[in-house]
Amino acid sequence: MASIKPSTPKGTRDFSPTEMVRRNFIFDTIKSVFRKYGYQQIETPAMENLSTLMGKYGDEGDKLIFKILNSGDFLAKADAQKLADKNSQSLTAEISEKALRYDLTVPFARYVVMHQNEITFPFKRFQVQPVWRADRPQRGRYREFYQCDADVVGSPSLLNEAEFIMIYDEALSKLGLKDFNIKLNNRKILSGIAEVIGKADNIIDLTVAIDKLDKIGLDGVIKELLEKDFSSEDIEKLKPVILLEGSNSIKLESLREALKDSATGLKGCDEIETVFTYIDSCNLQNATLELDITLARGLNYYTGAIFEVKTNEVAMGSIGGGGRYDDLTGMFGLKDLTGVGISFGADRIYDVMDELNLFPADTNQTTKVLIVCFDSEGEKYALPLLHELRANNINSELYPAGAKIKKQMDYANNKNIPYTVLIGSDEMKSGLLAFKDMHSGLQENLNVKEIVERLK
Amino acid sequence: MASIKPSTPKGTRDFSPTEMVRRNFIFDTIKSVFRKYGYQQIETPAMENLSTLMGKYGDEGDKLIFKILNSGDFLAKADAQKLADKNSQSLTAEISEKALRYDLTVPFARYVVMHQNEITFPFKRFQVQPVWRADRPQRGRYREFYQCDADVVGSPSLLNEAEFIMIYDEALSKLGLKDFNIKLNNRKILSGIAEVIGKADNIIDLTVAIDKLDKIGLDGVIKELLEKDFSSEDIEKLKPVILLEGSNSIKLESLREALKDSATGLKGCDEIETVFTYIDSCNLQNATLELDITLARGLNYYTGAIFEVKTNEVAMGSIGGGGRYDDLTGMFGLKDLTGVGISFGADRIYDVMDELNLFPADTNQTTKVLIVCFDSEGEKYALPLLHELRANNINSELYPAGAKIKKQMDYANNKNIPYTVLIGSDEMKSGLLAFKDMHSGLQENLNVKEIVERLK
Repeated sequence: MASIKPSTPKGTRDFSPTEMVRRNFIFDTIKSVFRKYGYQQIETPAMENLSTLMGKYGDEGDKLIFKILNSGDFLAKADAQKLADKNSQSLTAEISEKALRYDLTVPFARYVVMHQNEITFPFKRFQVQPVWRADRPQRGRYREFYQCDADVVGSPSLLNEAEFIMIYDEALSKLGLKDFNIKLNNRKILSGIAEVIGKADNIIDLTVAIDKLDKIGLDGVIKELLEKDFSSEDIEKLKPVILLEGSNSIKLESLREALKDSATGLKGCDEIETVFTYIDSCNLQNATLELDITLARGLNYYTGAIFEVKTNEVAMGSIGGGGRYDDLTGMFGLKDLTGVGISFGADRIYDVMDELNLFPADTNQTTKVLIVCFDSEGEKYALPLLHELRANNINSELYPAGAKIKKQMDYANNKNIPYTVLIGSDEMKSGLLAFKDMHSGLQENLNVKEIVERLK
Repeated sequence: MASIKPSTPKGTRDFSPTEMVRRNFIFDTIKSVFRKYGYQQIETPAMENLSTLMGKYGDEGDKLIFKILNSGDFLAKADAQKLADKNSQSLTAEISEKALRYDLTVPFARYVVMHQNEITFPFKRFQVQPVWRADRPQRGRYREFYQCDADVVGSPSLLNEAEFIMIYDEALSKLGLKDFNIKLNNRKILSGIAEVIGKADNIIDLTVAIDKLDKIGLDGVIKELLEKDFSSEDIEKLKPVILLEGSNSIKLESLREALKDSATGLKGCDEIETVFTYIDSCNLQNATLELDITLARGLNYYTGAIFEVKTNEVAMGSIGGGGRYDDLTGMFGLKDLTGVGISFGADRIYDVMDELNLFPADTNQTTKVLIVCFDSEGEKYALPLLHELRANNINSELYPAGAKIKKQMDYANNKNIPYTVLIGSDEMKSGLLAFKDMHSGLQENLNVKEIVERLK
């Protein structure tokens, strides 16, 4: 077998032990908060039937779905004409019937419909699994990445929206973030705005434009609106709404005034206010909750609340988002099941934490102590200590006998092992072993019992 | 969009919340033991380059690898003749350059070679990820399943072999298994046996036959050997070795006698004895360590120790296995790196635990208490209690106001929530809430502080 120079497919990554400890810290933290709020984990297969996924993400999305070639003689039944024409697109369905999941939302909808008779509603589920997209890879964009979603279906209560805000606050605070905004909007407010200026049909153009306020400023937004069938008069009416300022309650008051002729808009204001009231009953730790009516996200999809989370400590896009939707499972024939959900952007959170140096140095995921010995006699002496440490649930290793001490100490350093125990002939004679703190360099002579106590 | 009846691809599974709690219990237990012994987690991408995987698993294996169709106009550069011939096999390489990993071993070898300059050897890694195989699905065999591997590369010490036995013992005991055998053999002993009967070249035939002793009995093995170029005289020489009985040390003594003319065979005996000596220094919890010279497993691959684990409590195939190999990374150009590794059969362990009723009823992965209220006033009253519970890290839920009490209690029962707190108008007046143990049915009236204390 000729040896080949190995690599990973472009846009995919290996995760080293150090990266895994950090990623696990993020995922474990988020999962524990999901569980604290009553969310239950599910997993779905990496592969879905092609028919489950196609047509759910638009034409562009369909192209980015990784298709799996049928096994065996996949060409046997393929249409000869399509082959001769080299028509890749029409041939796909004939030689592929499975594909890799593109997100966690469509598989979740499929799951809910398939298992509807076993599920107790409201169904609060979370899911942390990789997804695959044939996007052009670029900095921060991968072809394989984890999504981290929580959704509740079958409950219209706005308590769910409030709890998602608490989940964001608690999880991100636990990860060490000190200053971040949870932005809240409501699709009904956006509909109300379009309605009161008499442009209900142009809501998409309207929201796409004002969603860019951050990036292109008011002049940019106005320019875009003028190009899109909005008159100067419309824009004058819009301005005070777009430029809403002050506290959340002042903004809400101004909105109620502006939207007084739209029942839908006022409903949106009521919903926002209810969520605020729920939040008032608790103390957010590090999050600032902000009513932001320029927030649109996946508008076609959302029907009520819209969320987005941004850190103020590092320049970074949104690190989380979500919203309420009223017809997730309709595509699979189960109508009128309302849902609301959020997602954490794990890769971006990783980058933020890395930049802010928020990863804990010590975790229970790494080796705590390395026993260093010189020969087989030392190894024999070391074994009972090793067993004793492990019986006390202390992650520990014995470097196999025979290696030079420098090599063993390098091993401890490279693996970031915080303590070593040296066993030489003097140590064996006295029963006092050289216990070294690798960070401080401090060394003490301790007996086995003292070492175990120290590390427990 | 027409609604389609949703399903998962054959051979794949959804995992429900209940199944996930159980699977996490298995995986978390095994991972914590791997970590206790100094193993570090890595992850590799689901997709590997097709060239990384092809040719590593034999012709049959190559066919079972799931190939991923190239994105975009994949037929553009395809050979017209191959298309016209409908030659699926030769066309595959032209329209697919990536595939789903088939096991964790080859990706690990690829990882070690790619990252050899960052890795500190000996490198003790574990990996728990799904793999995919286009096998015909049947009971207990899936097209997507998790593997759970630990390997150390770059250390010839037999301490590693001994620690893997301890890892099996500790992890399976922690999962609740009370009676299981860890079978140990050594490739060098098998080579020695073939050598002393003068059939060194027929070692594969020999080991394939005696590996079946359990299933087809001695007569079956003899019949198979006679068909395979072994004489009656050879078989007479083999019999005492195959039928080795007694304690491990007696078996070893008999083996040393039988293999006294084979240096390789005696080396194998020495290695086994060294492992036994290491194990003598600790107390195995529930495992019985058994020298079993009929054990062969992936013989072409293993060069030293061979492991297999079987439970004696339930009829089930092996629930774990592994061994030492001397040239894992040679296929990617890094020669002479010795390694030894084991694997846990998670799906089978799940079935064993299910049959023996070993899954813990209470875990920190489920909701501990549901607060039940009747109207928005009750909900308002409940919120501070809810926040207090969560501040004390108690997984808790408040059922959104407005549902009938029966529906809320059903929700608690279906979700297996062990406690409920009822908040009605009397409770709000008195401050004493109805705290109910859902298993015993016992109900007490407690104040908020008492409830939190009870659940902490």
